[in-house]
Amino acid sequence: MNAQATAMVLVGFKTPLEERRYPIPEPAAGEVLVRLTASGLCFSDVHMWQGEDPRTPLPIILGHEGVGEVAEVGGEVTDVTGKVLRVGDPLFWDRGVVCGRCHYCTVLREPYLCPNRFVYGIHRSCEHPPHLLGSYADYLLLDARTRTFSLVGCDVDPAVLVAAGCSGATAAHCLEVAAPSLGDVVVVQGPGPLGLFLAAMGARAGARDVIVIGGTDARLKLALSLGATCTLNRRATTPEERRTSILELTDGRGADIVYEAVGAAVAVTEGLTLVRHGGAYVSAGFGQPGGSLPLDPFRDVVRKNVRFLGVWVSDTRHARQALDLILSEPDTFAPIISHRFPLSDATQALEAMHRKEALKAVLLPAGEGSR
Amino acid sequence: MNAQATAMVLVGFKTPLEERRYPIPEPAAGEVLVRLTASGLCFSDVHMWQGEDPRTPLPIILGHEGVGEVAEVGGEVTDVTGKVLRVGDPLFWDRGVVCGRCHYCTVLREPYLCPNRFVYGIHRSCEHPPHLLGSYADYLLLDARTRTFSLVGCDVDPAVLVAAGCSGATAAHCLEVAAPSLGDVVVVQGPGPLGLFLAAMGARAGARDVIVIGGTDARLKLALSLGATCTLNRRATTPEERRTSILELTDGRGADIVYEAVGAAVAVTEGLTLVRHGGAYVSAGFGQPGGSLPLDPFRDVVRKNVRFLGVWVSDTRHARQALDLILSEPDTFAPIISHRFPLSDATQALEAMHRKEALKAVLLPAGEGSR
Amino acid sequence: MNAQATAMVLVGFKTPLEERRYPIPEPAAGEVLVRLTASGLCFSDVHMWQGEDPRTPLPIILGHEGVGEVAEVGGEVTDVTGKVLRVGDPLFWDRGVVCGRCHYCTVLREPYLCPNRFVYGIHRSCEHPPHLLGSYADYLLLDARTRTFSLVGCDVDPAVLVAAGCSGATAAHCLEVAAPSLGDVVVVQGPGPLGLFLAAMGARAGARDVIVIGGTDARLKLALSLGATCTLNRRATTPEERRTSILELTDGRGADIVYEAVGAAVAVTEGLTLVRHGGAYVSAGFGQPGGSLPLDPFRDVVRKNVRFLGVWVSDTRHARQALDLILSEPDTFAPIISHRFPLSDATQALEAMHRKEALKAVLLPAGEGSR
Amino acid sequence: MNAQATAMVLVGFKTPLEERRYPIPEPAAGEVLVRLTASGLCFSDVHMWQGEDPRTPLPIILGHEGVGEVAEVGGEVTDVTGKVLRVGDPLFWDRGVVCGRCHYCTVLREPYLCPNRFVYGIHRSCEHPPHLLGSYADYLLLDARTRTFSLVGCDVDPAVLVAAGCSGATAAHCLEVAAPSLGDVVVVQGPGPLGLFLAAMGARAGARDVIVIGGTDARLKLALSLGATCTLNRRATTPEERRTSILELTDGRGADIVYEAVGAAVAVTEGLTLVRHGGAYVSAGFGQPGGSLPLDPFRDVVRKNVRFLGVWVSDTRHARQALDLILSEPDTFAPIISHRFPLSDATQALEAMHRKEALKAVLLPAGEGSR
Repeated sequence: MNAQATAMVLVGFKTPLEERRYPIPEPAAGEVLVRLTASGLCFSDVHMWQGEDPRTPLPIILGHEGVGEVAEVGGEVTDVTGKVLRVGDPLFWDRGVVCGRCHYCTVLREPYLCPNRFVYGIHRSCEHPPHLLGSYADYLLLDARTRTFSLVGCDVDPAVLVAAGCSGATAAHCLEVAAPSLGDVVVVQGPGPLGLFLAAMGARAGARDVIVIGGTDARLKLALSLGATCTLNRRATTPEERRTSILELTDGRGADIVYEAVGAAVAVTEGLTLVRHGGAYVSAGFGQPGGSLPLDPFRDVVRKNVRFLGVWVSDTRHARQALDLILSEPDTFAPIISHRFPLSDATQALEAMHRKEALKAVLLPAGEGSR
Repeated sequence: MNAQATAMVLVGFKTPLEERRYPIPEPAAGEVLVRLTASGLCFSDVHMWQGEDPRTPLPIILGHEGVGEVAEVGGEVTDVTGKVLRVGDPLFWDRGVVCGRCHYCTVLREPYLCPNRFVYGIHRSCEHPPHLLGSYADYLLLDARTRTFSLVGCDVDPAVLVAAGCSGATAAHCLEVAAPSLGDVVVVQGPGPLGLFLAAMGARAGARDVIVIGGTDARLKLALSLGATCTLNRRATTPEERRTSILELTDGRGADIVYEAVGAAVAVTEGLTLVRHGGAYVSAGFGQPGGSLPLDPFRDVVRKNVRFLGVWVSDTRHARQALDLILSEPDTFAPIISHRFPLSDATQALEAMHRKEALKAVLLPAGEGSR
Repeated sequence: MNAQATAMVLVGFKTPLEERRYPIPEPAAGEVLVRLTASGLCFSDVHMWQGEDPRTPLPIILGHEGVGEVAEVGGEVTDVTGKVLRVGDPLFWDRGVVCGRCHYCTVLREPYLCPNRFVYGIHRSCEHPPHLLGSYADYLLLDARTRTFSLVGCDVDPAVLVAAGCSGATAAHCLEVAAPSLGDVVVVQGPGPLGLFLAAMGARAGARDVIVIGGTDARLKLALSLGATCTLNRRATTPEERRTSILELTDGRGADIVYEAVGAAVAVTEGLTLVRHGGAYVSAGFGQPGGSLPLDPFRDVVRKNVRFLGVWVSDTRHARQALDLILSEPDTFAPIISHRFPLSDATQALEAMHRKEALKAVLLPAGEGSR
Repeated sequence: MNAQATAMVLVGFKTPLEERRYPIPEPAAGEVLVRLTASGLCFSDVHMWQGEDPRTPLPIILGHEGVGEVAEVGGEVTDVTGKVLRVGDPLFWDRGVVCGRCHYCTVLREPYLCPNRFVYGIHRSCEHPPHLLGSYADYLLLDARTRTFSLVGCDVDPAVLVAAGCSGATAAHCLEVAAPSLGDVVVVQGPGPLGLFLAAMGARAGARDVIVIGGTDARLKLALSLGATCTLNRRATTPEERRTSILELTDGRGADIVYEAVGAAVAVTEGLTLVRHGGAYVSAGFGQPGGSLPLDPFRDVVRKNVRFLGVWVSDTRHARQALDLILSEPDTFAPIISHRFPLSDATQALEAMHRKEALKAVLLPAGEGSR
């Protein structure tokens, strides 16, 4: 292949991305070259663009929510189910690449905590070859350790699948850490993509009631269509009113599980008051620092015998679960994708997210007219 | 029975207990009248005596760690294993009495959270009959719902068993919430009775290393005899030095589980820095408020994917486990009982605890020379 | 109350039930006298009627799936949520009464295994007072230890609720023992009431696919309406064809969980071949002996690293979960009740079950015209 | 390296191994060439030698329990804790090599079930390069995916460590599947190396009593020194007497967990009668077929609400746990190694195992006099 790949590159914080061209690499053994068909924007991208995550290695091709087609394979490569990948196969992959050899990967079986983990579009600069390690581009080179899922035979819009890789997978991780039992009452704080997946998964995992708390009526309405049974607009209610609503639904006890998908300390303060004695508070919204809160261990955690559970990123198990869920109900999840842009409009897409106009924007690298 | 029972009664905060006499009641159906042979002092008793727990109903017979002999039984009463209780049988019991009917007792199977739970020596005043509901006395009347364990055939000093009922049982609850896997490294904060049981149980449940942090050399030395493999005196080390020691023992990761048995917010702040990513922080030391701390959810909980687990009191399962453990190694656990007093010296016993002179004091209601 | 209660009594195996009258008792403290509004027939009743369960104490009022209204209360009695019961309140209860004091109830928290457990309509003869301990009657006296659920405010046909008490609750127990993770593939063997609840709960607990195997097209069709995604008629397929279908759905692995709701050894033989390596086989269909099978531990259990899990009856947690599920979707579950009879036609109802004409029959003690 | 390696090769079933020489390979990137210092014999080796496992690929270098020293490294290779391996480092490794990419490795996190798993000394013939894939040799070439543990700084006899890799690791897997709670009573069937590790681990994981059943007094005595609290010689007792002993120790209930380490169907039949209602039967002794038994699902599994759990091989987590345990108490575990032979006497070593003279034999490839 002699052609050039096109990428939108973050060169400096708070400035427009630059379109750059890179040579398309020949995949080495085990590597897979992917032609991207859709690339989701995560709110973490906005934080990186704004320079709020100082670890960001510049210049970088952002984008960790990619979906594509196999363009070239380095030898025989199989996906997670053992299917041999062929050129043209639609493909999904776990955004995180782990070493598979360390104490976390092998002894603890917690690969999401692998100290050698890297994520496409987050940890690697595009300064040096192979350059193409983020999905705001038309080509991406998958490391040989990447776990892939062939989508052959699935006729689903790739743009709808992007969220499986990040917010969907992280939500699945939350469910693994604390899943509702049949009949439980669940609260979700924050109706962004992560919170919407939590609401959808909570409902599908057996919760009797799923209450979503948020500040935007449109997102709360979407939560209802995804499985929430009740919503509370935090602009129209006081914390005390919300607490009263939840106590009323639970014979005065409080929620069995509260999932936090906000990323602000103030949400934790409220959320801990909503959990019943013996319940679980699952915090997953903090992709980066979000302030601190005064915690009274006696009142907030010990006297209530509460489990306060931090959830960091996700692994291949969770990506598989999120992907399966969207594949089984694509029309239900499609509305999470609120905006679509051609690749060259990546900066506009980031702006739409930044202004909270877009719930989730997707870049379509194959051209503005794709699907 | 016509005789009178003698009790040491808390009449006013921070004042000496008063010796009072009450009629010995006839047990109704299912009730058991116990002649106490040993009554442990818990540090919660000191808090109540000092008026630091405003819920304390005055006047009250303190004492929730009792061991005794069956004096009279209301009809046929069986212990947890189905043995019929007979007059003279040595007896142990779960200090907490639960309703057995509510959502917590039946649907959630979390009886320690039963809203109708009461504890001998804590929740019931002695103002009205049957008066004898605390173990700073020579007789105690067990409610028909009390879960008892016959000690027939066990030739163990009752004074050594008192701790099974409260600190031992609470430690067993901590182990239920997060038990070490084979080879784990465990930290215990605080070498009081609760922390000592945590060290002993952690070692016996498979931990490879058990590090105890405390401020008193004598207590740390006792921890070693109970199974700790290493101790750190917080008066002789900085928090950073302690953290370094623990990282060195764990290939740089941190402890798999940290158990908190201090009850002060500052311990939580330190303890959360000692847990590895993916590990558990189990907080059980707060029997009453112990201040608050600034918590950064991103740094302290989410990025580390940590489980922060509150543990409140205990139930019959835990009492059984703690009792079994002491019965199997009574000589190992005997040194936890540092002081013995006749019943009439209850105030002196409280003072010895208050001054931290006594690790655990025991009252011997049958007379100073008993055993 | 001076009136007489009417009951249909099993006097001899394989003979018609006899209508008998008993004095209506005055409830003692904690007891609740219930006027029955619906009484479900379980296939165990047929086994007892046919003399296939030799423990059956004759004469007996069968019926362990009762729903009713409070007729009289012995003092102040509360339900599981703490609501005080009042005359006229519609009421549901856990069919099993446990002692709440033994090792199984307290230390192991497995009350379904309480050796003192008794079930209305199964374990107690009606020969002696209070006689009214089965629900093929118009009145039932609830023991003071019975866990009740007030249905005040629920406008649901009591006939639809009966199945929550036995097959629904046992299915919930199966889910507690092995619940699907999001995306799992689940197989249910046997589309009787137990299997139908398993299919419904499996689907609502996150399974991606729920395959039901059975011999009756009508029941398999009902399974689909309850949440199954696929059915296999065992009269129209060979075991090898069924296995092939399931392997195809699972990339060649087999089902993550197989639930057995048949009660015949031959089903276990087949079922174990349908589970993937590392999966779970949950056997709950054997309410009584159902033959034996040759088991090769290497091939069937060890090489596959399979969990083979026996499930016996259920407890209050499970009854609550099953009740909540039906209350939230009564129209979905209503078709499980295929036949309704007046109390006096109890023998005909048993015959309809025996002939497998009825999926589940319900007696309406308040009269043939009720609802 | 130009020298030749020496290996003892299984050329035909039931015939003496042949000494052969192979070129010592240069390790490719990620590979590690190991000079073996000890090689354990597992009873599976005897089965393979006897032709009882028809999958055995001839010719083959047997031996899956190797310990050695790094002879040469292909580039920079790290062990599980991240330590860079250097020539001369003593080394231990997980005997099983898995793909790290399949559904079992990534989605299910059950790598012991990886369909691409291979084990040194079991699955690969020595016919083709690199030949050296079993540990009855003086050199072994570790595949790049092998998980290694540097033993730098551990002054422990390598012969004592061999058992960690197979029987120790499999025992750790059993404990992961069902670990005793504090105070549980545990039974182990079979005092071979697997059963001895189960007894040792059960005792160290919190069991109150560990009863070992076996047929050889010397092995039962060794079990006591490893942590068993009681032994039953099956040649001196009837099954009914053994059952009675266990019921007596458990207030009539039966063992909380029974671990099977025999590999014969008759042991399963007995073992299932020894488990309490609600307990676990963990079967791990079947490395190959061991007959079948008649199983009555009602009586044996369902009515007892038992978990019957198959355990197949082990993974890196388990190898780590077993290794740590031996390293912490090498003198306790040393007696498991009953016989030592020079490499050239491998056939005699197999014969000593076959005659049950040796509990575990070890080959010392560095010469008969080593340690």
